[in-house]
Amino acid sequence: MSEPTTTTGEALADSLRAIREREPLIQQLTNEVTKNDLANVVLHWGALPVMADAPGDAGEMAELAGAVLLNTGRMSDRNVEALHEAGRAGNELGAPVVLDPVGAGATPTRDRVQGSLLSAVEFAIVKGNYGEISHLAGAEAEVKGVESVGEYEGIGETARALAAETGAVVVASGAEDVVADAEAAYRITAGHELMGAVVGTGCMLGATLAAFRGSLEDDLTAAVHGTLAYGLAGERAAELPHNGPASYRINFLDAVANLRPEVAADLDVGGRIGRID
Amino acid sequence: MSEPTTTTGEALADSLRAIREREPLIQQLTNEVTKNDLANVVLHWGALPVMADAPGDAGEMAELAGAVLLNTGRMSDRNVEALHEAGRAGNELGAPVVLDPVGAGATPTRDRVQGSLLSAVEFAIVKGNYGEISHLAGAEAEVKGVESVGEYEGIGETARALAAETGAVVVASGAEDVVADAEAAYRITAGHELMGAVVGTGCMLGATLAAFRGSLEDDLTAAVHGTLAYGLAGERAAELPHNGPASYRINFLDAVANLRPEVAADLDVGGRIGRID
Amino acid sequence: MSEPTTTTGEALADSLRAIREREPLIQQLTNEVTKNDLANVVLHWGALPVMADAPGDAGEMAELAGAVLLNTGRMSDRNVEALHEAGRAGNELGAPVVLDPVGAGATPTRDRVQGSLLSAVEFAIVKGNYGEISHLAGAEAEVKGVESVGEYEGIGETARALAAETGAVVVASGAEDVVADAEAAYRITAGHELMGAVVGTGCMLGATLAAFRGSLEDDLTAAVHGTLAYGLAGERAAELPHNGPASYRINFLDAVANLRPEVAADLDVGGRIGRID
Repeated sequence: MSEPTTTTGEALADSLRAIREREPLIQQLTNEVTKNDLANVVLHWGALPVMADAPGDAGEMAELAGAVLLNTGRMSDRNVEALHEAGRAGNELGAPVVLDPVGAGATPTRDRVQGSLLSAVEFAIVKGNYGEISHLAGAEAEVKGVESVGEYEGIGETARALAAETGAVVVASGAEDVVADAEAAYRITAGHELMGAVVGTGCMLGATLAAFRGSLEDDLTAAVHGTLAYGLAGERAAELPHNGPASYRINFLDAVANLRPEVAADLDVGGRIGRID
Repeated sequence: MSEPTTTTGEALADSLRAIREREPLIQQLTNEVTKNDLANVVLHWGALPVMADAPGDAGEMAELAGAVLLNTGRMSDRNVEALHEAGRAGNELGAPVVLDPVGAGATPTRDRVQGSLLSAVEFAIVKGNYGEISHLAGAEAEVKGVESVGEYEGIGETARALAAETGAVVVASGAEDVVADAEAAYRITAGHELMGAVVGTGCMLGATLAAFRGSLEDDLTAAVHGTLAYGLAGERAAELPHNGPASYRINFLDAVANLRPEVAADLDVGGRIGRID
Repeated sequence: MSEPTTTTGEALADSLRAIREREPLIQQLTNEVTKNDLANVVLHWGALPVMADAPGDAGEMAELAGAVLLNTGRMSDRNVEALHEAGRAGNELGAPVVLDPVGAGATPTRDRVQGSLLSAVEFAIVKGNYGEISHLAGAEAEVKGVESVGEYEGIGETARALAAETGAVVVASGAEDVVADAEAAYRITAGHELMGAVVGTGCMLGATLAAFRGSLEDDLTAAVHGTLAYGLAGERAAELPHNGPASYRINFLDAVANLRPEVAADLDVGGRIGRID
């Protein structure tokens, strides 16, 4: 992509338009907590969700997909088998695969499963919260999530290191989201604090990145525009009436659907993306 | 039933009243994406949902049920075993069984599972979108869903053919919903375009048909009144304030609960149901 | 605890404050219907939900937890294995374990699974509806739920008997909720009738009790304050605009988040809790 820091509303609109025009099938393997949310958020961006997760069916569906999301929130043997199968199918047929390593560092089981996926599958994008990304990168991590200012300086370098190691673009979500490839890291200033008061917003970002990457060729563009669009939807959701996190969540899903290309084209997104030196 | 085209608001009200009076237990096996929605929609119509889907428990619960829904969105071996078990229990004890063949035609696994269910279980109602019904009937089908005007003429005959082959009443959902038995096909003009912007509305129609069939003796009446009531709720949902598909979805569930017998009795539904020649 | 009947708004506020200060990890094994709701309700009270339910991972996560919820709405062999594993881990490491015996009495499978859990695991709190609690206590039970006035007198004694047998504090939810230990039973007058029109409100009470017990040392205080807070949120939800059960449900989740310590401190809860003689 061109330098991310020069992203304009028009460029974001182009990406949003690409999703609606290509309408890619997004095959998502995910935990049961957020399955409905992930299906809806993909549909609201304009792509087609499918959530086939039984061994056999999972791989067959991945063969038809424009992108594959592997969210590791679910750890049963059968589900792990399906994760591998879908990842492999994506790699073999050229569908980009996105990893959301939910709970990385929390249990030995998760370490083992995520490690085996990182060895076996080539990922286009890896998205986690600060703690998960830091753990995968071998850096010091607090599993409950690290969002302090003191950590901020380090996370850019950590994300770059993980990008260099995996070949994927890395998205670390937190107070400010960070997107990095092996060469550079960027902070994206968008979003709303209520997003952290709702279960599944991290997982929905993973689904969003799969929808964007299923419609765009470039990993970095997909990651930057997906993360930015997601945060903008979070801000616009707060402008609709709400009484707490549950009604905000409904607003958020509406805001995703309403962030249409023609809306995005008029937004001034200058200054939203900054390079981390 | 009497000729579906003569359905009145009073007749629809009688069916809605039957659900609230009989309060049948509806045992639903379904995919994980829409489980919560299906439970709620059944409760809002006035029936009692139960979602027992482990082998053993699934059949035992089906033995207590007024109707059984088999939604094949989930393809694990254990779930397929439970689908067969619950279908068999329904057939043996006389509880009508409704099939929702989610994703028919999409993968070889789905073909195999749905084929085995259609061989082993006798269904009262089979509900799918145009593409799924066409695929099951052996007609040309586009798996991503077919809603074009060009297909419309054919779908009535296709649905009748599948009804003749299976002995079930067939509901094909699309821009206009089609209900058919072996003798005739009817189009039902009700619904709202936002229903297609929300994940799970197709699955919720399946649950609705199970709730209606669990309370009414006649397959065709249950299918016609269930489909009509569902579409009317979709229209009434659009009259409540909403900002996008997510708030529309909340409205839709509220509208189901609010379509009480006394409300339906006052509706003019003349012209909603037409015979397809 | 001091006598429950003397509970004040200030005391309730202290409990709510304890959750937000300790922010315990609540490991919840539950059915797929209500997984998202249970995660959100725990987060909205101020605790941290985690829903790891695969054998291996379930126990490892329970070792990190401040409290463990075992909701038996899901009956697959693997899930039953995980329920035992998480219960055992909780007992071994001193994390209180809450049981929600969903569907007790409905099927032989549920009897067997719940019986095995009650033998193997020591529970801090057991919560069910009137029918479930009565069935577990060996009393006459109607499985579809018993909420009549005629049953009310008996349920206090039944709950006490189950408390004496299990060593747990017992919560029986119904028109009026009943909380009992082996010595005494109390009725808690709070809540709203729309709570019964939404799927999952019973399960969310179980999650609430786990969040409270994960933050408070005393079983009876956690059960009484959790049940009271839950009912108060149900009442406050009805004061927000809604058009039916689905919008009420959103209000309910918002009301949980909004029942902050400083709000509770100002509430007059005198007369909400009465001893059943």
